[in-house]
Amino acid sequence: MPYDLYYWPTIQGRGEFVRLALEDAGAAYRDVCRLKGVSAMDRFLRKDAFACPFLKSGKLVIPQTASILFYLGARLGLAPKSQNERLRLHGLQLTIADWLVEVHDTHHPIASSLYYEEQRAAARQRAAIFLAERLPKFMAYFERAAGSRFSYVHLSLFQMIEGLRYAFPNAMRRIERRHRKLVKLHDRVAARPRLAAYLASERRLPFNQQGIFRRYAELDET
Amino acid sequence: MPYDLYYWPTIQGRGEFVRLALEDAGAAYRDVCRLKGVSAMDRFLRKDAFACPFLKSGKLVIPQTASILFYLGARLGLAPKSQNERLRLHGLQLTIADWLVEVHDTHHPIASSLYYEEQRAAARQRAAIFLAERLPKFMAYFERAAGSRFSYVHLSLFQMIEGLRYAFPNAMRRIERRHRKLVKLHDRVAARPRLAAYLASERRLPFNQQGIFRRYAELDET
Repeated sequence: MPYDLYYWPTIQGRGEFVRLALEDAGAAYRDVCRLKGVSAMDRFLRKDAFACPFLKSGKLVIPQTASILFYLGARLGLAPKSQNERLRLHGLQLTIADWLVEVHDTHHPIASSLYYEEQRAAARQRAAIFLAERLPKFMAYFERAAGSRFSYVHLSLFQMIEGLRYAFPNAMRRIERRHRKLVKLHDRVAARPRLAAYLASERRLPFNQQGIFRRYAELDET
Repeated sequence: MPYDLYYWPTIQGRGEFVRLALEDAGAAYRDVCRLKGVSAMDRFLRKDAFACPFLKSGKLVIPQTASILFYLGARLGLAPKSQNERLRLHGLQLTIADWLVEVHDTHHPIASSLYYEEQRAAARQRAAIFLAERLPKFMAYFERAAGSRFSYVHLSLFQMIEGLRYAFPNAMRRIERRHRKLVKLHDRVAARPRLAAYLASERRLPFNQQGIFRRYAELDET
C-alpha cells in the first residue's frame, strides 16, 4: 500500500522534507492534495493533525515532519537500526525543524496571517539578526553534528542549503565559505541517482514566494 | 543510575516539561545545572545538542524536549506500550513545542538576543494576533485531541495552561470558558499526589520575567 502524503500542493514547504525521503528511497506514495485538492486534508485536521504535512500509512496518521521522518527512516532504509542512533538522528531533525521556523519568521515575524508587506520593517530587523547570529550558529552546529553516514537527515540538510541559497544568496555565499564540509554533504546528496531524477522532474516544485524559503532582496545581505 | 537533566537553573522554560514527567513518575534525577552551574552544559553543546534542555541517560545524550519525553514516556510509565499510540502522543507533544515557540515569540518576535524593550511594538502586534487567532486554535485542537487517558502529554498541557494563565490572565479567563474539558484535565493533573508535592516544593521554580511565559500587562487583553 502506498504512503499518502498530505501537504499544500503548490509549495515545497515542510512537505518537501518528506517528499525527498520518499523519492530518494523510491517509495510508492501519493501526494494526495496534488491529485485531489486541499480539501482532502479537512477530515484529518480536527484531531489527527493540527497542521500539514501529515502522512497516512495504512490506518496510522502521523503529523509533524520530524515524526514522519522518524517513522519512515527505518522503514525506507534511510536510518540505521540502532534505537539510540535513530533517536540521535531524530534530535538533529527536530533541530532542523527549529531552524526552519526561524527561516520562516524572517519574512513573517509578526503573523503568518498578515502579508509580508504588512510586517516588512520587523522582517528586516529579524532577518538581519538571523543572518548575523543564528544562521552561522546552525551551520556550524550541523557541520559538526551531521556525521558522514547517509540518512534522511542529510536529505533535509541538502534541502536547507538549497532553500537558504534561494532565499539569501548573498549571505550564503559568505557563510558557505566557512562550511565546506556541509557544502560537500549537499553535493553528495544532489548526486544520488533517484534524488537527482526527482529534482529534474515535474514533481519537484520550484521555490516560490508562497513557501517557507522566499527571496526578498531587502532581507538578504548586500 | 539517575537521569541527568541539563537546563537553565533559574527558569521553568522548556526544561519544566521534562521536570514534570520525572517528578510525576517519582524518577531519580539530577537537575545538573542547579547543582553545578550552567558551565556543566558546555561540553555537550558543540555536537550532542544545539541547545538545552537535554537529558543524559547512561551514555545516551538526548536533546529536544519532545524527544526526551518520547524516550522517558515508556520508561517511566507515562505512555502506553503501543508503538502507534506512542507516535500519536509524540505528534501531540511536537505540536505543544510549536505552540510554545509562538508563546515565546509574543515577547520576542524579532530576536531572543534583544531585550523585550527593544522589540516592544512588534511584540504588541504579535501578541494581539496570537491571542485572537492562534491561542484559541491551539486550545480547541488540544481539547479534541488530548484524550482522557493520562500520559506525559497531559503533564505538558497542564504546564501550558499554568504558563498561559501567568502570562495572559485576562485572555485566558475569556478562552478557558469555552474549553472546560481542558481545564478539567489541568485540574486532574494538579491533583496527582507526586505532582502536587513537587509544585508545593522548593524544586518548582516560580514563573518569572526571564522564562518563556512572561507577564507584560500590555501584551494581554484588557
